[in-house]
Amino acid sequence: MRDVFYGAACSLDGFIAGPNGEIDWLDVPASRADDERYLAEVWSSVDTLIMGRKTYEDAFKHGDPQAMGMFDGVTWYVFSRTLASVETKNTHLVRDDAAGCVRELKAQPGKRIWLFGGGEFASAMFGADLVDEIAINVIPVLLGSGVPLFVDPGKRVRLEHAETRLFGGGCVLLRHRVVRV
Amino acid sequence: MRDVFYGAACSLDGFIAGPNGEIDWLDVPASRADDERYLAEVWSSVDTLIMGRKTYEDAFKHGDPQAMGMFDGVTWYVFSRTLASVETKNTHLVRDDAAGCVRELKAQPGKRIWLFGGGEFASAMFGADLVDEIAINVIPVLLGSGVPLFVDPGKRVRLEHAETRLFGGGCVLLRHRVVRV
Repeated sequence: MRDVFYGAACSLDGFIAGPNGEIDWLDVPASRADDERYLAEVWSSVDTLIMGRKTYEDAFKHGDPQAMGMFDGVTWYVFSRTLASVETKNTHLVRDDAAGCVRELKAQPGKRIWLFGGGEFASAMFGADLVDEIAINVIPVLLGSGVPLFVDPGKRVRLEHAETRLFGGGCVLLRHRVVRV
Repeated sequence: MRDVFYGAACSLDGFIAGPNGEIDWLDVPASRADDERYLAEVWSSVDTLIMGRKTYEDAFKHGDPQAMGMFDGVTWYVFSRTLASVETKNTHLVRDDAAGCVRELKAQPGKRIWLFGGGEFASAMFGADLVDEIAINVIPVLLGSGVPLFVDPGKRVRLEHAETRLFGGGCVLLRHRVVRV
């Protein structure tokens, strides 16, 4: 079974973007080198991205991320009931049974699966018990409001601490494994 | 100026209690010894507690916390527009101008001031720029819903990472200082 991990950067109060989608606060100059090292490590462990529609659309807002080398050899799965089609490379649109699709992906051989966001899609994945790890990079700021990292999956999820790593600029990577009971 | 710190334990998704006030998940047996050591350190640095009404009432739900030694020599300030009086020892009820009162407390000589919660009262204190530190003990669990640690103060608050400490049972203490701009 391949691992699904939910990886994102968030504010200390748990937002992945500001109320108007602001992500300026994510750029902590003193953290860049550590961040790049960490992301290189993550990308080398991944061959599949799964995400909701909003995260997919946001990914292309500021240019074409697929033009960046780190996405080479990575297959994208976008889960949406409303999108008619997707135009980007190596991208599959899944219109229903997200849980069934991800369960199948997990059963296939390959590298890890990055649950790319957002909170709502992640909530469905937690609800279906398909997430194995949470890796959040806590940026030292309170945003007050915005796009939440976690949305209620309707149940408790037991975790086990796996790692804490301090990045430059006071960013803290917190990794937890999901405990199956 | 005395320090005001917001200290609480919370789930990884930012709740200080479950949807029905559940706090069973706060008791992580493997964390108890570290927790006690940490709390002894905190209590020795504190002579004043400030809190909202709900936190005050909750504190007495499961017995009389003031009967415990750690509260000796600690003065409680409860901020509420609706409470008529408070009956507990060393307790002051403040019915208006919470920010003005806390500003005065900060200007007095003494030990640190523990902003005991909850999220709504903390939000007013962040809004009035009266908080100097956040010390949260992240318990390895997602609750999904409940009583939030942070409530929108209506502005961004810049932080500086101060400390990360791993407790038994995988609890992680995250300390941040508020950066005044």
